[in-house]
Amino acid sequence: MFYHVKELQFNARVSKPDPKFASLLLEQFGGANGELKAALQYFVQAFPAKMPYPDKYDMLMDIATEEFSHLEIVGATIQMLLGNINGELKNQAEESEIMQLLNGKEAKEEFIHKAMVNPQFFGLNGGGPALTDSQGNPWTAAYVTANGDLTVDLRSNMAAESRAKIVYEYLLQFTDDPYVKETLRFLMTREIAHFQMFEAALDTIQPNFPQGILQGDPRYSNTYFNMSSGADFRGPWNEGTSPGLGETWQYIDDPIRHVMESNGMQGHQPTGTPRTQDQVEKMNKDLGKMRSSQIRDAIPKGEVQWSNYSAREGKRNI
Amino acid sequence: MFYHVKELQFNARVSKPDPKFASLLLEQFGGANGELKAALQYFVQAFPAKMPYPDKYDMLMDIATEEFSHLEIVGATIQMLLGNINGELKNQAEESEIMQLLNGKEAKEEFIHKAMVNPQFFGLNGGGPALTDSQGNPWTAAYVTANGDLTVDLRSNMAAESRAKIVYEYLLQFTDDPYVKETLRFLMTREIAHFQMFEAALDTIQPNFPQGILQGDPRYSNTYFNMSSGADFRGPWNEGTSPGLGETWQYIDDPIRHVMESNGMQGHQPTGTPRTQDQVEKMNKDLGKMRSSQIRDAIPKGEVQWSNYSAREGKRNI
Amino acid sequence: MFYHVKELQFNARVSKPDPKFASLLLEQFGGANGELKAALQYFVQAFPAKMPYPDKYDMLMDIATEEFSHLEIVGATIQMLLGNINGELKNQAEESEIMQLLNGKEAKEEFIHKAMVNPQFFGLNGGGPALTDSQGNPWTAAYVTANGDLTVDLRSNMAAESRAKIVYEYLLQFTDDPYVKETLRFLMTREIAHFQMFEAALDTIQPNFPQGILQGDPRYSNTYFNMSSGADFRGPWNEGTSPGLGETWQYIDDPIRHVMESNGMQGHQPTGTPRTQDQVEKMNKDLGKMRSSQIRDAIPKGEVQWSNYSAREGKRNI
Amino acid sequence: MFYHVKELQFNARVSKPDPKFASLLLEQFGGANGELKAALQYFVQAFPAKMPYPDKYDMLMDIATEEFSHLEIVGATIQMLLGNINGELKNQAEESEIMQLLNGKEAKEEFIHKAMVNPQFFGLNGGGPALTDSQGNPWTAAYVTANGDLTVDLRSNMAAESRAKIVYEYLLQFTDDPYVKETLRFLMTREIAHFQMFEAALDTIQPNFPQGILQGDPRYSNTYFNMSSGADFRGPWNEGTSPGLGETWQYIDDPIRHVMESNGMQGHQPTGTPRTQDQVEKMNKDLGKMRSSQIRDAIPKGEVQWSNYSAREGKRNI
Amino acid sequence: MFYHVKELQFNARVSKPDPKFASLLLEQFGGANGELKAALQYFVQAFPAKMPYPDKYDMLMDIATEEFSHLEIVGATIQMLLGNINGELKNQAEESEIMQLLNGKEAKEEFIHKAMVNPQFFGLNGGGPALTDSQGNPWTAAYVTANGDLTVDLRSNMAAESRAKIVYEYLLQFTDDPYVKETLRFLMTREIAHFQMFEAALDTIQPNFPQGILQGDPRYSNTYFNMSSGADFRGPWNEGTSPGLGETWQYIDDPIRHVMESNGMQGHQPTGTPRTQDQVEKMNKDLGKMRSSQIRDAIPKGEVQWSNYSAREGKRNI
Amino acid sequence: MFYHVKELQFNARVSKPDPKFASLLLEQFGGANGELKAALQYFVQAFPAKMPYPDKYDMLMDIATEEFSHLEIVGATIQMLLGNINGELKNQAEESEIMQLLNGKEAKEEFIHKAMVNPQFFGLNGGGPALTDSQGNPWTAAYVTANGDLTVDLRSNMAAESRAKIVYEYLLQFTDDPYVKETLRFLMTREIAHFQMFEAALDTIQPNFPQGILQGDPRYSNTYFNMSSGADFRGPWNEGTSPGLGETWQYIDDPIRHVMESNGMQGHQPTGTPRTQDQVEKMNKDLGKMRSSQIRDAIPKGEVQWSNYSAREGKRNI
Repeated sequence: MFYHVKELQFNARVSKPDPKFASLLLEQFGGANGELKAALQYFVQAFPAKMPYPDKYDMLMDIATEEFSHLEIVGATIQMLLGNINGELKNQAEESEIMQLLNGKEAKEEFIHKAMVNPQFFGLNGGGPALTDSQGNPWTAAYVTANGDLTVDLRSNMAAESRAKIVYEYLLQFTDDPYVKETLRFLMTREIAHFQMFEAALDTIQPNFPQGILQGDPRYSNTYFNMSSGADFRGPWNEGTSPGLGETWQYIDDPIRHVMESNGMQGHQPTGTPRTQDQVEKMNKDLGKMRSSQIRDAIPKGEVQWSNYSAREGKRNI
Repeated sequence: MFYHVKELQFNARVSKPDPKFASLLLEQFGGANGELKAALQYFVQAFPAKMPYPDKYDMLMDIATEEFSHLEIVGATIQMLLGNINGELKNQAEESEIMQLLNGKEAKEEFIHKAMVNPQFFGLNGGGPALTDSQGNPWTAAYVTANGDLTVDLRSNMAAESRAKIVYEYLLQFTDDPYVKETLRFLMTREIAHFQMFEAALDTIQPNFPQGILQGDPRYSNTYFNMSSGADFRGPWNEGTSPGLGETWQYIDDPIRHVMESNGMQGHQPTGTPRTQDQVEKMNKDLGKMRSSQIRDAIPKGEVQWSNYSAREGKRNI
Repeated sequence: MFYHVKELQFNARVSKPDPKFASLLLEQFGGANGELKAALQYFVQAFPAKMPYPDKYDMLMDIATEEFSHLEIVGATIQMLLGNINGELKNQAEESEIMQLLNGKEAKEEFIHKAMVNPQFFGLNGGGPALTDSQGNPWTAAYVTANGDLTVDLRSNMAAESRAKIVYEYLLQFTDDPYVKETLRFLMTREIAHFQMFEAALDTIQPNFPQGILQGDPRYSNTYFNMSSGADFRGPWNEGTSPGLGETWQYIDDPIRHVMESNGMQGHQPTGTPRTQDQVEKMNKDLGKMRSSQIRDAIPKGEVQWSNYSAREGKRNI
Repeated sequence: MFYHVKELQFNARVSKPDPKFASLLLEQFGGANGELKAALQYFVQAFPAKMPYPDKYDMLMDIATEEFSHLEIVGATIQMLLGNINGELKNQAEESEIMQLLNGKEAKEEFIHKAMVNPQFFGLNGGGPALTDSQGNPWTAAYVTANGDLTVDLRSNMAAESRAKIVYEYLLQFTDDPYVKETLRFLMTREIAHFQMFEAALDTIQPNFPQGILQGDPRYSNTYFNMSSGADFRGPWNEGTSPGLGETWQYIDDPIRHVMESNGMQGHQPTGTPRTQDQVEKMNKDLGKMRSSQIRDAIPKGEVQWSNYSAREGKRNI
Repeated sequence: MFYHVKELQFNARVSKPDPKFASLLLEQFGGANGELKAALQYFVQAFPAKMPYPDKYDMLMDIATEEFSHLEIVGATIQMLLGNINGELKNQAEESEIMQLLNGKEAKEEFIHKAMVNPQFFGLNGGGPALTDSQGNPWTAAYVTANGDLTVDLRSNMAAESRAKIVYEYLLQFTDDPYVKETLRFLMTREIAHFQMFEAALDTIQPNFPQGILQGDPRYSNTYFNMSSGADFRGPWNEGTSPGLGETWQYIDDPIRHVMESNGMQGHQPTGTPRTQDQVEKMNKDLGKMRSSQIRDAIPKGEVQWSNYSAREGKRNI
Repeated sequence: MFYHVKELQFNARVSKPDPKFASLLLEQFGGANGELKAALQYFVQAFPAKMPYPDKYDMLMDIATEEFSHLEIVGATIQMLLGNINGELKNQAEESEIMQLLNGKEAKEEFIHKAMVNPQFFGLNGGGPALTDSQGNPWTAAYVTANGDLTVDLRSNMAAESRAKIVYEYLLQFTDDPYVKETLRFLMTREIAHFQMFEAALDTIQPNFPQGILQGDPRYSNTYFNMSSGADFRGPWNEGTSPGLGETWQYIDDPIRHVMESNGMQGHQPTGTPRTQDQVEKMNKDLGKMRSSQIRDAIPKGEVQWSNYSAREGKRNI
């Protein structure tokens, strides 16, 4: 169950209206790497985790809920940056006395000009935040990734936090409002904190590479295909030892020739790896057994109930 | 700020797994009229309402938060209906002893068959709920409407609750699980309750019709164009008195002739209405002044701060 | 069958080109609450209504067809506001004599500048209207709602008309062209008229609340959960009598405690309502029987034919 | 202005309900190459054509309006194929006497099964057609192409008709209902007719190749790059004379070498073409002048009015 | 298998940064008619063509690969036009010495202004090209058409090349950079070349009209419905002989009357055509047999292998 | 420049047609984590990397090109799994002799049934692969992330490879065809290899955490908000030392109270971290200077040329 407290998690303020920056800031409200994406991604991942891995479920829900709170901070900041647009849209007296005093024609044109640059706030939405990115694309769940495996999902989350971090970093270049900067720095820093939480959680799952259950085929896990010719470079990604499996990279300098000569890789032999097909098959079987039984054992047979209301023994810190 | 309590708002249970119904139920998780749409719609509408209309803001946030809690109930039910799919996907031992005992070939085919019918759970998502509708369309913010005017937004919400209600009604036809039915009835009933909350709130705003500020042109507000010929019907929507403005409906039986003869409605004269252009203009000006100043007055000049942390005088019911 | 008359339903004119406003006006051409959405929504809803409810079918098709006619008015206005952009794009003589006379460099830059602000007209579409909103989002049927029940669909339509009305109201702020204002006022007023038609039609269906067939569970239909703490407000939406069912609102001040103590609402008892579970069940059965038989009886068994061409007894007003 | 006549353009009938085929038929209702796409594509293209090219405008509006009429035929057929689903969804008496007589359990399961296969009709839409394709994707204006140039738009339309034709052809394989086949054959044949109309119209515009104004650079218009090696073929698309410009195809057998040696095509010389850069520049200037002035001359300076209501001299065939 | 050579197919250069034009140029990178759409469309069409029609497969893959190479040219040009935006975004020293020297405040504001006009480059993407069109819409496969029949696909491709051509033509109006113009002219000319390749290939398939297999019904293939009344025009599209089938156009001046009187076209008789239903049925059967057996015969029974690595007899031009 | 070799990188084969599995396999052709997404993501990221970081550019283009080659393998496998669907769709002889021999009615129904389960192959696409996922959603560039910073992009890529890997793992459960399994294992293993390449490349960039330039605020980088109460867990993600910055996690057990008491975190003091604001500011300035000048220095002033055709000194391995 969710609960809302009217006060923001961070004391967000603005110095003065700035609809232009409000428009850019939408990137973190309804954008591909914004707070809504983060909140919903962790929330959705939490469901299959709950029964087998209640500790990871706890963490995912803690962070998801914080991201919803960040979404609110971003929305509040946008609203404050919009100033009185919502009210101005209601002012339908074309020849109002105020407008006449304040050289109405120019005020009107300025208003029209602002609308051209930020149509989302003036046209459809009427002076409030919209669930779009800075270019008006509506938020889509295509941004969310949840694949039912924590060795994958936690990595997706580390990447998601990385992207959210850099977008805050870029946004900080486009405002001079010290209050807004303060808020953005808080939000940016939280992405750094969350990244480390996911990293630490991933580390408690062993083995966590390769992701999931199945081991890689020893013939293909350490080959590097030089598919883009000219200005070739060598580095730890194609020479020396591979970081995850500790195999020796095999550099295929002329991949077309190699594919032709190996009958489409059918004749390619494993080199530079101690792993064998037998080991792989055993590992697949053992790890599959272990993980699938962990999950199966955690799910009750027959009737299932999500919550146990009598379980909280008086301990209520809310 | 949002806060999460691990117990669900409603004690959701399932009798046994049913991935097929889980698939249909996605309609209320990531569908066009589902809980996420409701939650985010009210949440987004709340921002421009907060300062000028704190009572409506309170109501919008109360209901938005409840809808997030319903989203969680739906997700939990889907997860329980999926049973052990997540675990089965990890079981990679093809010739496992268990499978051999339990006529492996048939079990395998049954598993494959289930995947064809519910690809979302078996392929990409790995046995958890996805933010899609029952046909796999990712949720999009194009479902959300927020237009910066409560006389519009509250009506949008009444319609949204109507649609959510009927979808629960339809879904109830497709499960025989008494626990699931119990949960769906709770959720469906809450849509009925919310509908009435929005209706009551709309009624406290006067005038609330026409929506927004501008009055309709008396020439065009009570004409009915008979644009579809054959099997014509008359009813209170085209004869007698119009429900909102109390004008007399003017039925244009042959609209093409009428448009031609009135020079594209330029020569059309108002009939059946006591309203005049002067009254309309005065009303536009007065109402615009009233509403725009309500909003302008509620927004501080200069620095703005969203929350006042010292305002809660000890009163903390959470 | 549709038929087109080249003259517009309203004599749309513009004083001079204004590509900027054309860009905003796209909101009503291909936008979420624009004319295309309205036209297609009522058109799609009409199909299941035709046989059981021919009077509502007549109304839906009348209004749908008028909305197509409005779509044409909006498109024509956009086209006129674009002036000669289409022609300018064909003028490929870089060093044309005219350009040389008319300080070519500046003209060129002005042209380029206009294209930056309105890329839709200059790049892809080549100087005509596009089926997008003012920010370039292509129109999507995700905007359209049709749920197969008139107690729902008519409410969706009332909300849709509300949104279309307010968007015209906002747009009127951004043009000073008296001709364009005249057209927008006609279109805005028609939304007010349509709203009342749908309202009157809904009123002829009794009962129409709750929507569809199923009655709400008396335990949950009048509870208000105070899910957002701090700055709480009371109003007719959470105290007194609920507007639809006439029950007494039950305000749950501390929902977390209440959920915990009621075992996830399982122990929650109905209060403040005269309705009982037995009445609900009887009503569900009776209303379901009535409505489903209305529909079943209206649909012929075996072969079905949509139109009866001999039915029009000479009476042809087209 | 659009007008609707309740009778369909074609006397569509069905022999008996078939929700499965209804689901496939959605492809032509809300699919990428369906009737809505065709109708809106020609409708949108018509706006920039109206003033300079009223004859093409007439044709585009004739065909657009016919496609709207076809959309209605497809929708009506889908509705008839759905039979009484809409009514069944209202029948909420779980233990109805009828169900008990008619072995209720099996009927229920059959109903549930149908819903799994066609969720669009049972879940969200409630037994009517939806603006989606056969897989539930909502219709999007991304399907529509309108580029402001008839030498392009008419070719887009020929391709669109080709796709619509083949989809009807495929659909005909999936029904045995003679009435439905009759309707599909009518609709399919109309695509063939429309294709020829667009072809004939394109032929009246001279020159119409290359499309638009600018001529191709003689260095690059007749080269064929053999970018996919192995199993190479020669045919009239890379040897002999090119069909549009009548140049001699130049086959570049080893494009990588050619690009390297020609300094990225900078050193590539025109061969096999009589066209010169001078001719190209002259043609660009002349054709640009002609086409841009045609358009400019057709658009009134200053005030513009779309329709002239007094122009129809009594001649009214509607 | 694809292979990449770091050098571009065309020696693309820019004279100086121009982020505004970069923004428009996105139309050809991730836009509806851009290079990605072309590349993927031909690539996808190639799969079903490979076995039965290896010559068309060769052509489709040649052109698809060239389009990928063009996509790279467009991306490289955008990147060069963006100049050092990517680097500027990293420069986080607010009070840097350089900024102070170079009147920092103004530089900052200029930078902010540029970001407002091109949010895609400054916000999310960080100074590189994005797979969107010029308005920020993400590329979607809804742009791609592939229908499994070369008489359709090749026509789709001719239309696609037409659209790509005109978009390049429009874009050429918005840059004065001679290097960029040179590149755009190369790319535009290639669309002209590809159009002719597809046209020539279509011509080698006989018959290719109507598309696919099924012939049109002689009753409906030559009728023209005058669905849009007023300002009617006659031309080769509705009088004389139809270009594809050589039938005589039948002009139905009053389509409503005609439909009524013909009982929804049931009583409409074929006129102006020598084709008969018997001929049509025979042609359907014969052509269907021929084409389906061509395909069936080309696909091996049982095991299938895509490539034959020993088939290249030493002949390797790569 | 891209180049294509007709032979696949891997010798893909199938034992027999299996349209059902073809349908699931679309997930890796046009799905969110499929080969097209991978190919285009790395390709797009490569543009801003080219000048400042040619070694990373080389790696990104090598892997992007390999992913295009994998896309081709997946497409080829789908095509082979579809068998002769394309040909069957051409067979329009309803009463063919063959059908009559082979109990035509049943064959017909089987064919219709297959189409219902896989509408994508039978309806629109005509028996070839489509750029959609397994549920028919068209591929969208919303899947692609490219943020102009390698410390972010490489992490995005590691996550992308993780997701692709698990989807192949799931898919392997749904086929028994040994040839198909062989191909899927090759493709799955390549994701494992690519993951390690990106990991190794990330490691060569120092510092790479936090991502980008800006350091986190020491007040907020090590706090853990316990936002989801009940069943709380402690682990290395909220106690002990944070993995990236080596700070001591600060666990805020009652976040609502903490936020209230700290005036919305304004009064929150840094604890458990040696980092200071001064250090942060210095680091921001220094790192920003370093990275921005790396990029600025790599980009030529004035004219820019993407490729240098004379640079390859005869060394041509293609």
